[in-house]
Amino acid sequence: MALPHTVLRRLESPDCSTVCKQSRGATSSAMSQHEGDDHAAEEEQHVGEDDEGERHASAISTESLLAASDHVEEAHGGTQSSHRLLAYSDALLSIIATVMILPVAHTKMQVDEVTRDISVVQYGNVTMVTGSPFQELDENLQLLLGTKLAVYLMTFLIVTVAWAAHIRLFQVIVRIDDTLALLNLACMMLITLLPYTFSLMATFPSHILGILLFCGCVMVIGLIQSVIVLYAFSRPFLLQDQIQACEDRTVCRHHILKVLLRVPVMCLLAAVCSFFCYQLSYVLLALVIFLPYISQGVLWCRDKLLGPAEEDPEQVMFYTFLPSEPLSKERVEAFSDGVYAIVATLLILDICEDNVPDPATVRQRFNGSLVAALRPYGSDYLAYLGSFATVGLLWFVHHSLFLHVAQATRLMGLLNTMSLAFVGGLPLAFQLTHELPHAALRDERRAVQAACVLVFGAGAFQLATWVAALQGGGQQTLRPAVRYGGPEHVFMLAKLTLYPAVALAAFLLTIALSRFSATIFHLMEIATPFAFLLLRLTVRVVLALLRRLFGPQRRQTQNSEENICSGVPFNPLLIG
Amino acid sequence: MALPHTVLRRLESPDCSTVCKQSRGATSSAMSQHEGDDHAAEEEQHVGEDDEGERHASAISTESLLAASDHVEEAHGGTQSSHRLLAYSDALLSIIATVMILPVAHTKMQVDEVTRDISVVQYGNVTMVTGSPFQELDENLQLLLGTKLAVYLMTFLIVTVAWAAHIRLFQVIVRIDDTLALLNLACMMLITLLPYTFSLMATFPSHILGILLFCGCVMVIGLIQSVIVLYAFSRPFLLQDQIQACEDRTVCRHHILKVLLRVPVMCLLAAVCSFFCYQLSYVLLALVIFLPYISQGVLWCRDKLLGPAEEDPEQVMFYTFLPSEPLSKERVEAFSDGVYAIVATLLILDICEDNVPDPATVRQRFNGSLVAALRPYGSDYLAYLGSFATVGLLWFVHHSLFLHVAQATRLMGLLNTMSLAFVGGLPLAFQLTHELPHAALRDERRAVQAACVLVFGAGAFQLATWVAALQGGGQQTLRPAVRYGGPEHVFMLAKLTLYPAVALAAFLLTIALSRFSATIFHLMEIATPFAFLLLRLTVRVVLALLRRLFGPQRRQTQNSEENICSGVPFNPLLIG
Repeated sequence: MALPHTVLRRLESPDCSTVCKQSRGATSSAMSQHEGDDHAAEEEQHVGEDDEGERHASAISTESLLAASDHVEEAHGGTQSSHRLLAYSDALLSIIATVMILPVAHTKMQVDEVTRDISVVQYGNVTMVTGSPFQELDENLQLLLGTKLAVYLMTFLIVTVAWAAHIRLFQVIVRIDDTLALLNLACMMLITLLPYTFSLMATFPSHILGILLFCGCVMVIGLIQSVIVLYAFSRPFLLQDQIQACEDRTVCRHHILKVLLRVPVMCLLAAVCSFFCYQLSYVLLALVIFLPYISQGVLWCRDKLLGPAEEDPEQVMFYTFLPSEPLSKERVEAFSDGVYAIVATLLILDICEDNVPDPATVRQRFNGSLVAALRPYGSDYLAYLGSFATVGLLWFVHHSLFLHVAQATRLMGLLNTMSLAFVGGLPLAFQLTHELPHAALRDERRAVQAACVLVFGAGAFQLATWVAALQGGGQQTLRPAVRYGGPEHVFMLAKLTLYPAVALAAFLLTIALSRFSATIFHLMEIATPFAFLLLRLTVRVVLALLRRLFGPQRRQTQNSEENICSGVPFNPLLIG
Repeated sequence: MALPHTVLRRLESPDCSTVCKQSRGATSSAMSQHEGDDHAAEEEQHVGEDDEGERHASAISTESLLAASDHVEEAHGGTQSSHRLLAYSDALLSIIATVMILPVAHTKMQVDEVTRDISVVQYGNVTMVTGSPFQELDENLQLLLGTKLAVYLMTFLIVTVAWAAHIRLFQVIVRIDDTLALLNLACMMLITLLPYTFSLMATFPSHILGILLFCGCVMVIGLIQSVIVLYAFSRPFLLQDQIQACEDRTVCRHHILKVLLRVPVMCLLAAVCSFFCYQLSYVLLALVIFLPYISQGVLWCRDKLLGPAEEDPEQVMFYTFLPSEPLSKERVEAFSDGVYAIVATLLILDICEDNVPDPATVRQRFNGSLVAALRPYGSDYLAYLGSFATVGLLWFVHHSLFLHVAQATRLMGLLNTMSLAFVGGLPLAFQLTHELPHAALRDERRAVQAACVLVFGAGAFQLATWVAALQGGGQQTLRPAVRYGGPEHVFMLAKLTLYPAVALAAFLLTIALSRFSATIFHLMEIATPFAFLLLRLTVRVVLALLRRLFGPQRRQTQNSEENICSGVPFNPLLIG
């Protein structure tokens, strides 16, 4: 059986301009089938006319297909590329991952309703609302938001774990048929139930019902996935070429099932434990989620302490949990797109529903003036525009980064997920920033600072994703243009550092000038989009200045299009 | 300038097994750049290393690029494939299109709260709730749902119109750079505001504020899109190859701008009119939306009455509104995936937020029994599972259909959109079906019938999409496997007719057996997924029976893999 890592290592040829193409081709055939899926999709789209040809090709690559020829007849014309199934799964999973932010949003909404009513009542009397109700609001907020935010973060974690497992499964199964599509839909349906069971667990920690429901869902998901694996191995033309070509498929199947069923078995244990001691169940469930990271951490520590262990040559190299395991880049993009899109429009959902005043109210209270009736909502609109712009620009940075990613790894996926978790909180932070009246200075500053922290976290983890990709020179992970010394390297760095830098600056400014924190924040909101528009120009000017100051290499970079690997001397200056 | 339609027509070669490939290649280079975008994406992903090569190729194809070589230097490394930008736009637009179903859902929710409280209070006394409160509920529902459903449908229409315009624009501009990406994000932000302005217009029809806001948004969108066009034409390497190669780009630009600016100008007129007579504004706005269809209808009638007019050879053939104009298949898929994903999870959003009981309530009212506290929500869970399964299976049918679509047309896009509009209402119909208690027989039957109508509509328009694709033998639109006589033709028909048939049967049964309408509906929900699993088997059995009864062609279809165009004699039997 061909091992993707050995394939990757074999490809570390010195020629930097061709290695990227090579490794792309190799990895797409080796492990991340989904990235190469467009090719597969094309091949498969001709399934009608090319049926024989394709089957012929498979027959050449595997002898065992001959044995399964009775299955082939049954699957006539029914084999499909898995591309769109995975895109749909990604869309569903990204929605589910961000669902639990809504209860957080609406907690605040309820409290805001109260304050808004106060301010509306005071509207006629022109009395300023003093700070006293906001202290109470503050405590309420902290209590409610604390638990709900925890639920949101844990749900995000669980769904992304399920998503990672789904990616891993469909990196092995690269073609689907109708049965697999239906089984996958059933699996998706159960995954969408997880957030609810989780929020039951969080609300009633001592009731075993939540634990039982959660464990039940996970076990059924595990069983369906096992059925998917068994079904796919009984029809080898659905599998990726490596496994299809390998003689000892039973070992592969055994390994995959062992990894898959580990989670349901742990959940079964947790469910049984919950009848005796529910605390132990929680420990077991936490183990399930963090097991890959814990085992990797232990292995890493052992390697550091005792030196790297000799690798077992018989070990199966896919379905590992190594940080360098390839991850389908397309699916990371699709999942991220889904999260960014949902989060960007999160506030408009509420605006469309809640911010249309009642015609009777407008007639009675505002003398029929719609403009006056809409004025109290003004801050909502601004919050929406601000959060949409920020989320949109963070998407833009993400898009720019992944345009230059050749191959995503599990570590990059993890860092990207953490960035997305921060992005999920942004709309609420923006809403809070815009809704607290200017009278409550302390709260306003804290809201602004919370928003800054979230923006900083989202941007910093994007930067971390890039840094992780740059490890080892980015030979397999990045395209040459943004590696050390590539012509786009500095520009990419500038793009990725812009948001963290702006957020950090705003945070520090609010400490220094707490009176003007809202103004600072609004200025940041307005200025950042323009900063992105002018970024290329700015970077060029700064580079030209640096060149003039430090280096005699002017001639070399003027024709930088010809020697792409030029510019190396400048980058250490900027990275520090 | 090369015209896509003439290209398509030129390709109608008699060899049915190769024409598909040819036309795919031709159309992807001619018009639906996005379908061929994966190729473009790949080409572009190497932009770093292949920069010179790519630029070299462009220089060969266009002389004019030489004139714009100063721009090339400026855009160094910044040109990107538009693939992911369009995927993100599709995700945003599909969310926005389905947003306005939430107010409809929550209208019902509020009314349901009342009834649920009644039923909970009665719970202890074991008195049956009689029909009287439901009649009142019924009238409320009709009044509220009527207007909100109208808003939902109109929003869906407007957003899909905006989406179609977006597709058209990015079929001309096939590569992007950072500036275009940022301009597109600004455009998206304004489009997301449209549903809100529309719902203001619907709630306050006589206030001009709603009209002004709506017109303002549309005008700004039009202006941004014009800027995008001007920017792209000033950098011809961003344009599709046809326009890049054509000598007279100014004509193209003029034509595109003329089409683009028609809508903002009409909106400006409507805004000015609103100061004098707001009814006239509405007429103008309706004209804007339906203008393409009206003009096409008029042209079609003229052609039928007076015979086809001779075509102007100088006429620009893209940016038309012909029903046969190619539409990017990938974008239709991405938009549909977004809508299906949002709609499938619509109910879980509410469940996660509302159906977690308060710990204090559980302690006081249910003596700490969580199971008893969750029992009233049982119908919500069932409604969620039912609607997820139905939406998921409708997605599955859609996925199967578009797997065999080679090239989507504008007419197919329109029919697909109408199917999606029906899908949007499904979760609510399912919720209503499950929530009305069995005492209120009449309402229950009506809810079940409404759900049946929605399922039927969604399925029937999917079938209509296929029928539209089959027009003219499906030479350009479908892959050979599902054309008349293709081996998958009958199976595809069975897949597409399953849901409409089941819904129709259930509808008719509820008329005959109104007492058991809920039972019929639940049976339908449970049976349909299994019907899909067994569909291939069933179709095979039915075909074998038909073959035995009607035809001596058994030998011919046994080796149907060899002669793909066999099976023609059977299809008329099944189609009618």
